Amino acid sequence: MAAGRRILLAARPVGEPKDSDFRIEAMPLPVPGSGEMLLRTLWLSLDPYMRGRMSDAPSYATPVAIGQVMDGRTVSEVVVSNLDGFAAGDIVFSPNGWQTHAVSDGKNVRKIDPALAPVSPALGVLGRPGMTAYTGLLDIGRPQAGETVVVSAASGAVGSLVGQIARIKGARAIGIAGGPDKCRYVTEELGFDACLDHRAPDLPGRLKAACPKGIDVYFENVGGAVFEAVFPLLNNFARVPVCGQIATYNATEMPEGSLRSSALTRAILTKRLTLRGFIVSDFAARHGDFLRDVSAWVRDGRVRYREDVVDGLERAPRALIGLLRGENFGKLLVRVATGAH
Amino acid sequence: MAAGRRILLAARPVGEPKDSDFRIEAMPLPVPGSGEMLLRTLWLSLDPYMRGRMSDAPSYATPVAIGQVMDGRTVSEVVVSNLDGFAAGDIVFSPNGWQTHAVSDGKNVRKIDPALAPVSPALGVLGRPGMTAYTGLLDIGRPQAGETVVVSAASGAVGSLVGQIARIKGARAIGIAGGPDKCRYVTEELGFDACLDHRAPDLPGRLKAACPKGIDVYFENVGGAVFEAVFPLLNNFARVPVCGQIATYNATEMPEGSLRSSALTRAILTKRLTLRGFIVSDFAARHGDFLRDVSAWVRDGRVRYREDVVDGLERAPRALIGLLRGENFGKLLVRVATGAH
Repeated sequence: MAAGRRILLAARPVGEPKDSDFRIEAMPLPVPGSGEMLLRTLWLSLDPYMRGRMSDAPSYATPVAIGQVMDGRTVSEVVVSNLDGFAAGDIVFSPNGWQTHAVSDGKNVRKIDPALAPVSPALGVLGRPGMTAYTGLLDIGRPQAGETVVVSAASGAVGSLVGQIARIKGARAIGIAGGPDKCRYVTEELGFDACLDHRAPDLPGRLKAACPKGIDVYFENVGGAVFEAVFPLLNNFARVPVCGQIATYNATEMPEGSLRSSALTRAILTKRLTLRGFIVSDFAARHGDFLRDVSAWVRDGRVRYREDVVDGLERAPRALIGLLRGENFGKLLVRVATGAH
Repeated sequence: MAAGRRILLAARPVGEPKDSDFRIEAMPLPVPGSGEMLLRTLWLSLDPYMRGRMSDAPSYATPVAIGQVMDGRTVSEVVVSNLDGFAAGDIVFSPNGWQTHAVSDGKNVRKIDPALAPVSPALGVLGRPGMTAYTGLLDIGRPQAGETVVVSAASGAVGSLVGQIARIKGARAIGIAGGPDKCRYVTEELGFDACLDHRAPDLPGRLKAACPKGIDVYFENVGGAVFEAVFPLLNNFARVPVCGQIATYNATEMPEGSLRSSALTRAILTKRLTLRGFIVSDFAARHGDFLRDVSAWVRDGRVRYREDVVDGLERAPRALIGLLRGENFGKLLVRVATGAH
């Protein structure tokens, strides 16, 4: 019987992760006991939050221990089941981590019907990235028709959906992304009103021109210089769902920037801003609404998505390093099992 | 007939206001026309927001123009009325500004019944400072029983009520104030669980000791070093109503501090904090609830308040300068008419 493989956290990265922070190893296929099942990973989702799990800085989740399998969410196939309700051949969403196989007792596992739709979106537009966009925008950002919504990392799994939902709600959607190809995709394929390349000169000036009525909602994915360009344009009563700070995840110390925290708190007062951090599990009660709405929007073509697929588990470390550099283009997925579709 | 007096904004202050930024002048008594009334100012409220009105920096309200009467809320007596619904002798709340007399068409004027209670609290615990405390704490801070609420400027008009309402709601109330007398008053008279002197050494260490379970609500009145001491102690899901930044109102440039805005936004994310700026008029719909609750609490002795009274309109400029230095002790009022009570 073929052995499995898994990728462990070998060392805590200092700054940008490097190959030697990961270790890939063979493993014997695990054997499910009573009340358990053996899963085979088809798709592994790579997401910015993983950089936080590699670090032991205080955060909302426990870090991965050195020598432990890297955390990760997957779409998997049931190989052997000793668990009521699951049978060989079932397709499931499961937090297997970075490995080809896992034994599961069914906790946090959910069946997916492959007859309804492709299964990989369960890790993207119909999964946690999608629900992050939906709840952060609608429950914190609360865009009104005619308002201006700006979202950073606009071609990514979360940002692309934020802007499309903003448009569905009648708001103007302005994206910020890295490079002309991504910007073109965001406007031409996703239908945003505009998209600005943060790598080109004078982001503050171009952003101001693109937002003549200021900014009512800023969906914050990146932090750093992009946040500083957005900040002076926030209108009275603007809402800022703080979802990510990917520009700083590899930072070994907090970037200086030109914005002082005292200027930030003063603006919070004088403009009556709301800044609120969240993670998707804070809104678990909204999962039904999310699935109903976004599934319908995907079906009727109002929401589009793009996947960036990397083949083979062994390529996951490099792909995550690239994600943190902004090199991916769309939802980043690793096809772990040959032939997964 | 005795002439009136008024105080004008003579110059925009640079840094701390000085005497020459104000000008006091005599004026003929204004004559009310049809549909108007003549008011005599009894009490003038002095409040931190007035520093903002003296400046033309962008803010939520239009600044006072040079040569214009300083803005201010008063309790006044109707001298002559040509306005239906008001009669000579009525006591009213009215935004007369810094002057002994004013003509009013009744806009933003509200009658006060002097038979029910002393009239000066209409400028304090039962007025806008009180409602600022009530709405900011209850609608943004949302303290739960057993949580820890910290409030700065704790002996002031707003802060003193914040802590007392927090206690009524079953939370622990920790004050921060300037000097041992104010701190003693906050604990012994107002019943806070503790109060820390921000002028004594090592505020961060003492605050940590006073909040062994961290901070769930920080009602922000001051900014600066106090904010930086509070910030690391905020718990997951902490709420920060941003009401004032008095420590920075006289600043000619934003203080550097040691806290970077990038560290602030990162903590907003990882701790899922909510920071929200507000002014009391954002919650106008809550005025009835506020009056009902706080009047009852004052009547039954659960809420206490303290007034710091200065006699004579001509002393208002120095009193405002002192307020911005933290020299007042309780709600600062100017008794404009001899014998007002």
